[in-house]
Amino acid sequence: MADYCIAPSILAADFARLGEEVDAVLAAGADMVHFDVMDNHYVPNLTVGPMVAKALRKHGVTAPIDVHLMVEPVDDMISMFAEAGASYITFHPEASRHVDRSIQLIKNAGVKAGLVLNPATEIDSIKTILPQLDMLLLMSVNPGFGGQKFIPYVLDKVKQARAAIDATGCDIRLQVDGGVTADNIRALAEAGADTFVAGSAIFGKDDYQAAIGALREELAKA
Amino acid sequence: MADYCIAPSILAADFARLGEEVDAVLAAGADMVHFDVMDNHYVPNLTVGPMVAKALRKHGVTAPIDVHLMVEPVDDMISMFAEAGASYITFHPEASRHVDRSIQLIKNAGVKAGLVLNPATEIDSIKTILPQLDMLLLMSVNPGFGGQKFIPYVLDKVKQARAAIDATGCDIRLQVDGGVTADNIRALAEAGADTFVAGSAIFGKDDYQAAIGALREELAKA
Amino acid sequence: MADYCIAPSILAADFARLGEEVDAVLAAGADMVHFDVMDNHYVPNLTVGPMVAKALRKHGVTAPIDVHLMVEPVDDMISMFAEAGASYITFHPEASRHVDRSIQLIKNAGVKAGLVLNPATEIDSIKTILPQLDMLLLMSVNPGFGGQKFIPYVLDKVKQARAAIDATGCDIRLQVDGGVTADNIRALAEAGADTFVAGSAIFGKDDYQAAIGALREELAKA
Amino acid sequence: MADYCIAPSILAADFARLGEEVDAVLAAGADMVHFDVMDNHYVPNLTVGPMVAKALRKHGVTAPIDVHLMVEPVDDMISMFAEAGASYITFHPEASRHVDRSIQLIKNAGVKAGLVLNPATEIDSIKTILPQLDMLLLMSVNPGFGGQKFIPYVLDKVKQARAAIDATGCDIRLQVDGGVTADNIRALAEAGADTFVAGSAIFGKDDYQAAIGALREELAKA
Amino acid sequence: MADYCIAPSILAADFARLGEEVDAVLAAGADMVHFDVMDNHYVPNLTVGPMVAKALRKHGVTAPIDVHLMVEPVDDMISMFAEAGASYITFHPEASRHVDRSIQLIKNAGVKAGLVLNPATEIDSIKTILPQLDMLLLMSVNPGFGGQKFIPYVLDKVKQARAAIDATGCDIRLQVDGGVTADNIRALAEAGADTFVAGSAIFGKDDYQAAIGALREELAKA
Amino acid sequence: MADYCIAPSILAADFARLGEEVDAVLAAGADMVHFDVMDNHYVPNLTVGPMVAKALRKHGVTAPIDVHLMVEPVDDMISMFAEAGASYITFHPEASRHVDRSIQLIKNAGVKAGLVLNPATEIDSIKTILPQLDMLLLMSVNPGFGGQKFIPYVLDKVKQARAAIDATGCDIRLQVDGGVTADNIRALAEAGADTFVAGSAIFGKDDYQAAIGALREELAKA
Repeated sequence: MADYCIAPSILAADFARLGEEVDAVLAAGADMVHFDVMDNHYVPNLTVGPMVAKALRKHGVTAPIDVHLMVEPVDDMISMFAEAGASYITFHPEASRHVDRSIQLIKNAGVKAGLVLNPATEIDSIKTILPQLDMLLLMSVNPGFGGQKFIPYVLDKVKQARAAIDATGCDIRLQVDGGVTADNIRALAEAGADTFVAGSAIFGKDDYQAAIGALREELAKA
Repeated sequence: MADYCIAPSILAADFARLGEEVDAVLAAGADMVHFDVMDNHYVPNLTVGPMVAKALRKHGVTAPIDVHLMVEPVDDMISMFAEAGASYITFHPEASRHVDRSIQLIKNAGVKAGLVLNPATEIDSIKTILPQLDMLLLMSVNPGFGGQKFIPYVLDKVKQARAAIDATGCDIRLQVDGGVTADNIRALAEAGADTFVAGSAIFGKDDYQAAIGALREELAKA
Repeated sequence: MADYCIAPSILAADFARLGEEVDAVLAAGADMVHFDVMDNHYVPNLTVGPMVAKALRKHGVTAPIDVHLMVEPVDDMISMFAEAGASYITFHPEASRHVDRSIQLIKNAGVKAGLVLNPATEIDSIKTILPQLDMLLLMSVNPGFGGQKFIPYVLDKVKQARAAIDATGCDIRLQVDGGVTADNIRALAEAGADTFVAGSAIFGKDDYQAAIGALREELAKA
Repeated sequence: MADYCIAPSILAADFARLGEEVDAVLAAGADMVHFDVMDNHYVPNLTVGPMVAKALRKHGVTAPIDVHLMVEPVDDMISMFAEAGASYITFHPEASRHVDRSIQLIKNAGVKAGLVLNPATEIDSIKTILPQLDMLLLMSVNPGFGGQKFIPYVLDKVKQARAAIDATGCDIRLQVDGGVTADNIRALAEAGADTFVAGSAIFGKDDYQAAIGALREELAKA
Repeated sequence: MADYCIAPSILAADFARLGEEVDAVLAAGADMVHFDVMDNHYVPNLTVGPMVAKALRKHGVTAPIDVHLMVEPVDDMISMFAEAGASYITFHPEASRHVDRSIQLIKNAGVKAGLVLNPATEIDSIKTILPQLDMLLLMSVNPGFGGQKFIPYVLDKVKQARAAIDATGCDIRLQVDGGVTADNIRALAEAGADTFVAGSAIFGKDDYQAAIGALREELAKA
Repeated sequence: MADYCIAPSILAADFARLGEEVDAVLAAGADMVHFDVMDNHYVPNLTVGPMVAKALRKHGVTAPIDVHLMVEPVDDMISMFAEAGASYITFHPEASRHVDRSIQLIKNAGVKAGLVLNPATEIDSIKTILPQLDMLLLMSVNPGFGGQKFIPYVLDKVKQARAAIDATGCDIRLQVDGGVTADNIRALAEAGADTFVAGSAIFGKDDYQAAIGALREELAKA
């Protein structure tokens, strides 16, 4: 996997031909597919579940599928997405009473495990469990709603997270999701992020290759 | 709409190319699209939400989309699916504290309203509200799970429901969902059902036209 | 208490001077005060709790206070309202897992007990417990919202409830709440109701005595 | 607004004549009205909702109304209280899954936003979001119960909160609620609080002006 | 199994030596062990779980263990008690969203399945599912509390249930639980019950054999 | 009580003769009884409730009973276990909305109070309330499941907790629960723990005295 990783969010794709969309974005240079799962309880929207991930695998997608669970509780969904072919499963710690156990569930299924922090959640609140993770995702918008702008104060959280990850000495990806565009991706990379979710910045454009290229160009300056 | 109405359930379709699947099944003679919404709370699975219905409309689907909410609570999903282009919205009465209000919500959005009864739920429990409905859906399997067989005692409920609907003098479709195949569709029609959800009996076959034809042939004998 | 009982709902009163409002409406001939309690869980609004009922008692209100709990769960609120001076406490059966126990709680506190049925709820669903009640309240709008119109099909439920009550041989008041005005109160009385909640039909008028008089005039024709 | 701000809690007022009580306390020198909202879910009591706040505005109250939401979830109540005329809305962070979003909801409605911390909740848990707030409220009793004494260890939290606020360089009021009296208000002010909720220490006295005067006298020594 | 079946409830036994107590009561002539499971959610008490049932089996109890789930939700507990050696598992229909499915879960595990109705719940509400049951349990007190007296109106429900069971033509036990003593057991049997849970009427006595004998003597008169 | 305290968990005992088991383990040198309460909501299992604790007291157990509540919410269980004879009651802070109040509830009942932290929960999250505690319990496995191994990273949390406790200057026991054996107890003691829950390491052995002796021997080396 590249040092910098671009993960287009399916939320901005055309769900009527999702396989084709995912193929196109991967052909255009995306590194993984970001799969947003909402259950109308943890967030006020409902998107797509394990059957849809499974359909992508059956369709032939071999790239990593990075499942972001915006659901509560998480354990049953973890099992179903592991079975459906997820490569990463990340969840919000407040959505599980037993965070260590949920992480073990993911790992025991052979899937990479991560946590997601909402904008107002402190990095310090997960310091103990951080070394057990394969990925830390910082939300730079509030999950569950489209069309939001990047929340500026999250840039500082990226720096804090970078420092916390480096202090562990572990290999943990630092992902950012929400309002990521060519205008802010370089600053995020310089703050320490290495994995970038982009929705409308990719699927919202006519030319996916150009869109991803624009992001990579900015990353190259970081 | 035909006297008998066949509604293929998207649950058995290929979600990687859902628009194409829906086009194919409509071209093969289906009357409407049955859209199964699960939230991992009312039932232990999560399927697809309003964005996916909206994508089908944008894709060009003009046939009725019949949304079956297996979610709890229902009111926010009602608003989102009405906005996404649903033609029918049905929900389980025990999933709403205020059944009359939820039905009004659906109707005020210009959508046809219905209730769904699980196998063990009595027809008598909805007699008062029945005349306000455009559709009554009887589950002949337990919702939330695939690959179940038709529960035989539901046949008698279809007869009871038919009698209750006729007694209202209102125009209310009587739909059955769960394990409907060419082997039992005639008996269901004779018991009084007029709208039939079929999943694997259609999408599970290679030739959708033949599959729908086989169902219609049986219906013709009723 | 009069054969017909008029119970102005405080929802339509001026909460900045509630004691004065209640005094005025009682002086104008109201038989009891209807006290609407909403908790933003059973219904999507929050109104007033036990402290406010207690303040009315301390203010000098001696007329019956008829507390309608639109809350879930109910048992703790029952205890608090009994202590605050309620005369009647009614609740929705689906808001208590243990309906008989909740009714016993009310009665053991020396308060009269009742159940409330939403528009779509069947009279038959409470036949077993009916003889234990002092009051049965039928909602003729959906609780939790203002400014709704009387739902016509509830008139038939009033007749069913009257028959069910008469069959018990017990002394049980039959109350109706929602959109009750001088235009429909006679029909409701003729259908068998004897206790009438009125909000804007009383507090919404300048002259409470005239407003109550208009209702009584119609009742006199029943 | 004065440097030190006194906010009488309506919980200790006479709810039968709340408009008059609020007028009296404002005439006696109070700076704002502290409006305690309990929903019987976040705390085991139910008090007053948006209709009552609206009645105060209609009654003529123009002073700031400072709404403390002891409810869960918070978003719908935020919208209703903003519409009812609230000046401040504060909520407990654990009562919202999406704290940043709830704060944005308040601000987008033109209302000042704050968070409330229970006695055992750490100041550090809200450091990231602190600069977005207009007010931070520290509970010095457990919310939902009357007649409690000031919890001594909260004095130290006031100092921590003061330091955290000063470090942001933002204009954020630091409010304390629970057992505030003339005996401890000076110490609280010296620890860094600038806004003081007082219930029985004001409404429990015969002479509101004297009661507020006694608090101000102590504040003058700080 | 005898025509009439006596099922001592472990709630009244000495939990410090439960194996011995159960042995004693079976030796004294009891037909099965009634195992009361409370989870502090469906009812306001917490009793004993699957580990304790398993310990009884390991201890050597071979008599039927009749597990009454006063829990919500039920499906996970069903699986655990089936594995622990339950002979019957009964649950309250309002505690499962999917009653038919929960019954299938029990039966598929090789365990006999039943439903339990609270005092105020109508017999008519389970008519459709009744033929699928092995046992119907009518509560004659409110579950979750000790020391209650038999609720007289349940006697009439026993007659209704008897008629409903006979109409199915199926072999379904009709059990009564709550305040059953030598004073009312004959009347219950004459009303149609065939299985009797007794707590303090057996374990509360010094001589279990005499206590069970007294019940059987009354049954012999029925 | 000894400097080091050994608390056998009843989870591993024979529930058919629990009194005898507890007597045996106390005779074998245990210092207290660790009583694991699960409600099938906070954790996915249900164990034993207040009646069983009461039975142990009635059976003659006079040693401290240390009740670990794996339940949610906690306040009603606190009252019932205090009445049943608990010596310590500990709960998980995320299972109570009002942690300070729940601790006061325990103490006001004359019982010693503690908090329990799951593996991934930060020590820093309870620093404010720490001085109010009599015991801090660190879980070294995920509660609710048997047969788990000690999670290595908890050893470092023990050190952090020791430092935090020492900084308070208060007398607070530091307990560890989960996978404690003769192989790791010395390291745990050296890290600062003083109270050790052991399940299968004691009740799983034939000779309780030898098992406890083996643990004490290791502790003697610390």
